[in-house]
Amino acid sequence: MRLRNKPWAEDYIHNHSHIVELNPYERKGQWQELFDHQQPLALEIGTGKGRFIDGMARQHPEMNFIGIERDKNVIVSAIEKLNDPEVHNAQLIHENAKDLRDMFGENEVDYLYLNFSDPWPKTRHEKRRLTYYTFLEQYQNVLKDDGTIIMKTDNRQLFEYSLVSFSQFGMTLQEVSLDLHATDDGTNIMTEYEEKFSEKGQVIYRCKASFTNNTDLK
Amino acid sequence: MRLRNKPWAEDYIHNHSHIVELNPYERKGQWQELFDHQQPLALEIGTGKGRFIDGMARQHPEMNFIGIERDKNVIVSAIEKLNDPEVHNAQLIHENAKDLRDMFGENEVDYLYLNFSDPWPKTRHEKRRLTYYTFLEQYQNVLKDDGTIIMKTDNRQLFEYSLVSFSQFGMTLQEVSLDLHATDDGTNIMTEYEEKFSEKGQVIYRCKASFTNNTDLK
Repeated sequence: MRLRNKPWAEDYIHNHSHIVELNPYERKGQWQELFDHQQPLALEIGTGKGRFIDGMARQHPEMNFIGIERDKNVIVSAIEKLNDPEVHNAQLIHENAKDLRDMFGENEVDYLYLNFSDPWPKTRHEKRRLTYYTFLEQYQNVLKDDGTIIMKTDNRQLFEYSLVSFSQFGMTLQEVSLDLHATDDGTNIMTEYEEKFSEKGQVIYRCKASFTNNTDLK
Repeated sequence: MRLRNKPWAEDYIHNHSHIVELNPYERKGQWQELFDHQQPLALEIGTGKGRFIDGMARQHPEMNFIGIERDKNVIVSAIEKLNDPEVHNAQLIHENAKDLRDMFGENEVDYLYLNFSDPWPKTRHEKRRLTYYTFLEQYQNVLKDDGTIIMKTDNRQLFEYSLVSFSQFGMTLQEVSLDLHATDDGTNIMTEYEEKFSEKGQVIYRCKASFTNNTDLK
């Protein structure tokens, strides 16, 4: 999605520092201080126009949310949504996150959301996929031991790849849905992409995975 | 699928003891003796009319195949297909396999195929699904350490369940396909069910999983 350049975006971002943390690297290990309540922390990689984080923050006042988005022309829409006195539990980061470990301390995050990440379909671009093992190493570091990754995508190949990548990294699948909208109980918050693609009849995939296997098989 | 009762089926099975092992429990640990060549052993649970095992045996003369089918009215069709002097590497078992460990020795099997198993959709029937952990315990026992389970199904819920069940048992996914026929390179052998369902536009799922993680992530 190419968006028209918004020359005012930089100023707009800086004028909303109560929503956008302007020094995310200095905030490492201390994100909870930004919120009214110390409660489970969820991180969304690629927040886009913010429909998901905004919906989740309102649906889950018992959690804190941080969204990362590198595109200034997109994050301004997320700021607009979250610039509501009723929302106290969401913050944004305007960065191209090369390594999450630079911005988050060990075990600082409880939930990590990967929503409709770029599939990078060519084999030579495998390393850029957000479920390549070098990214999983980052997630493992910043997530609590019993933390969870929740991934949604409409891209079949990326989902196939990610299930195998999670598994081969030693992660445990907690839940797999191969047609999320066929089984949703009404709690699923859609992203902008998700609504567009599912309206076209595209199946939406979701899985939840963790780095520990705390399942009691019996 | 209900099939008409074939009163001649029992006799037919007994008259083809060169294809059907009539004493499978006494054969435990010695299946290779039935074949011309000692080579990797593949086991199909629920062979049905035998289209898959027949096609695989012809496509893979470098492997030995055993198919288990409990329905006498169905297995006769598999016998007919395999009753061909060109096929030397396939045998059948006419049993309701309660526990594979009664018929196969430890590490006797290289590949285990689960094709279009009964989904048992009700939660109270979970224990009957062939990917419930008690079955995985059997497979782990009879499979070699680096052995592989290859599962195909058209049933979304069973596939979702099985991916999670494999993972929570500590197994590693080697491959996942969420639309097998969209990506098949021409080597996929279809079962009777598979052809029927895929002709109706039903997606076919497949995964390969093993009990060891011998993947080099780098």
